[in-house]
Amino acid sequence: MKAVPQDILEDLGAQIILGNTYHLYLRPGHELVRKMGGLHKFMSWERALLTDSGGFQVFSLSELRKVKEEGVSFRSHLDGTSHLFTPERSMEIQIALGADIVMAFDECMEHPAERERARASMEMTLRWAKRSKDYFEAHKHECPWAITSSENQTHNHRGHEGTQRESASDTVHPTAAVLHDSMPESIKTPALFGIVQGGMYADLRRESAERTVELDFPGYAIGGLSVGESRAKTMDMIAAVLEILPKDKPRYVMGVGYPEEIVQYAAMGVDMMDCVLPTRAARHGLLFTSEGRINIKNARFAQDQGPADPKCACRVCSRYTRAYLRHLFVSAEPLAGVLNTVHNLAFYLDTMRSVRHAITLGDLSGILSGSVSFT
Amino acid sequence: MKAVPQDILEDLGAQIILGNTYHLYLRPGHELVRKMGGLHKFMSWERALLTDSGGFQVFSLSELRKVKEEGVSFRSHLDGTSHLFTPERSMEIQIALGADIVMAFDECMEHPAERERARASMEMTLRWAKRSKDYFEAHKHECPWAITSSENQTHNHRGHEGTQRESASDTVHPTAAVLHDSMPESIKTPALFGIVQGGMYADLRRESAERTVELDFPGYAIGGLSVGESRAKTMDMIAAVLEILPKDKPRYVMGVGYPEEIVQYAAMGVDMMDCVLPTRAARHGLLFTSEGRINIKNARFAQDQGPADPKCACRVCSRYTRAYLRHLFVSAEPLAGVLNTVHNLAFYLDTMRSVRHAITLGDLSGILSGSVSFT
Repeated sequence: MKAVPQDILEDLGAQIILGNTYHLYLRPGHELVRKMGGLHKFMSWERALLTDSGGFQVFSLSELRKVKEEGVSFRSHLDGTSHLFTPERSMEIQIALGADIVMAFDECMEHPAERERARASMEMTLRWAKRSKDYFEAHKHECPWAITSSENQTHNHRGHEGTQRESASDTVHPTAAVLHDSMPESIKTPALFGIVQGGMYADLRRESAERTVELDFPGYAIGGLSVGESRAKTMDMIAAVLEILPKDKPRYVMGVGYPEEIVQYAAMGVDMMDCVLPTRAARHGLLFTSEGRINIKNARFAQDQGPADPKCACRVCSRYTRAYLRHLFVSAEPLAGVLNTVHNLAFYLDTMRSVRHAITLGDLSGILSGSVSFT
Repeated sequence: MKAVPQDILEDLGAQIILGNTYHLYLRPGHELVRKMGGLHKFMSWERALLTDSGGFQVFSLSELRKVKEEGVSFRSHLDGTSHLFTPERSMEIQIALGADIVMAFDECMEHPAERERARASMEMTLRWAKRSKDYFEAHKHECPWAITSSENQTHNHRGHEGTQRESASDTVHPTAAVLHDSMPESIKTPALFGIVQGGMYADLRRESAERTVELDFPGYAIGGLSVGESRAKTMDMIAAVLEILPKDKPRYVMGVGYPEEIVQYAAMGVDMMDCVLPTRAARHGLLFTSEGRINIKNARFAQDQGPADPKCACRVCSRYTRAYLRHLFVSAEPLAGVLNTVHNLAFYLDTMRSVRHAITLGDLSGILSGSVSFT
């Protein structure tokens, strides 16, 4: 999470973080993360972690990308070196990272795409899903806490002699240790989610969903949306797929969205979403508030002694004025990125808390109409 | 404080922050800060604040600087606009910012300088000190909380209707309000410190100290050191001046220094120091530790599961490994600047806490020899 320390994320109530497989594979490298005891331990995050398949960043960041049946070859955006991601390789990397949820390797198709292109891509994603699952089932026990605990012991002794921290760092990642020692077999290992594709064709989406469900995953994602299509189209695709995905498994729409979007999708039955929007927008000065989006660099905030969002109780809104946040942003102070990100995360997490609360009450109408506040 | 939220600075035990008059004058402007209730309120910092005179940044950052008896004319490093800082103008700006300690306007002389140049500069700094004091005494009651509270009331109502924060933001800065309403006259206003100059000539330094003390300030700074001279020379100059400055007033060496330096100067009788080193170094990956300085980007830390400093109990050392801090830095993650800065500040603040503890015990020998730990 760019610019925000983990303890603040905990205070905000974040329950899960997404780690980018492509980035972590290139730097620091999945084998280093495995040696360090896995991503939980490496980044000091005991709550849930999800890793993506790496395919999306290969699609959006890397150069000379080439898709074949075997997988995707590409050049690193960092140093131009050549790499190959296959379903098997993506599983190997994600198992090494040791997240709680691992994503099947799918093709991130261009948009727009003709029907036949979309069908072919969907078919390949299904073959890759099968290969992902086969490799995952055969290797899921190779997660970091299972195979590197003795190696970690060696590393942990470096620089720790005679300090109070020795006992803490001599053990492997606590969650991992608990999982390994005392949990039933079924949750000692990560969970692999399948991904539904099919472009912007509802019948292909439905077919993809049916055939992905046949492969039997503990959770299902809907990928390839929010790639430039209208929001109505996004909703149509989600609605078509949700009819088919089992309701008793997590249903995850990847890469969305604006606050009003995620409320709508949750109301439709979506359980999980991920998006770079709240954090990336924050670093560009865009703040989400109960009164709508504001750009904090706007001159009208120069003497505004109100908080970023008058209805928000986050540590930023409780303490700082818009005038100060604007000053930090205009002066390119690194603190601007920190504070703006903390507020936007608070706003998104508050939004989802309101959604969960409304679900418990059995009435999402207030939230959907905007008449129920998010705080 | 670049990259660190105020609540973390409070947790670290920071008691005072230095605000740069030059930067705040250019952006957001001292009149805006005054309107916002002063720097305390603007940045949400209720503990002590000190502002420098603005002269040092004019010397180090601005273009086309021209020093005359009247003051220093310069062009902004931001937009090239022309400005003039005089002793009177520096006081006016600092009073508008509303810090607790305000610094006299002195000449920041080049180094090295011939004796006659150093004498002339010292003489002008003395004349400027007198002008600073005269203006300050005549205008010190114009601090933000004294003259803008009614104006602030107006601003505070913006965007706050019906929220829990209304009562808090309808008052002026709490410290300021307390000072204004219930404190004796002598501490309702900021304190103006004089500054000793004299280049690298002990006799000029002594003369500067004597004549500055004659002007009668509530505290005294030693300026123009750590500008490229040897550390032995710095110590000689400080020692010469400390013989003359009254022991019952704060004695402040400006712009120092490394951890071992500040311990030495404190042992000599220095009460206050300021330095950009711990924060700037942090942003470049240089960490201060009980085992010496380390550059976190070094490859030898790539798999180091120890904390930045095994003897440090700060929130960074309690939670993150050197391997993770190195990864963040090498990946240019903004979190690297945050965490490295927090650790270096913890190290410096721990150092000064140990110094104060040793002073209370009446024995600084352990700290000076390095045999007493800083934590």
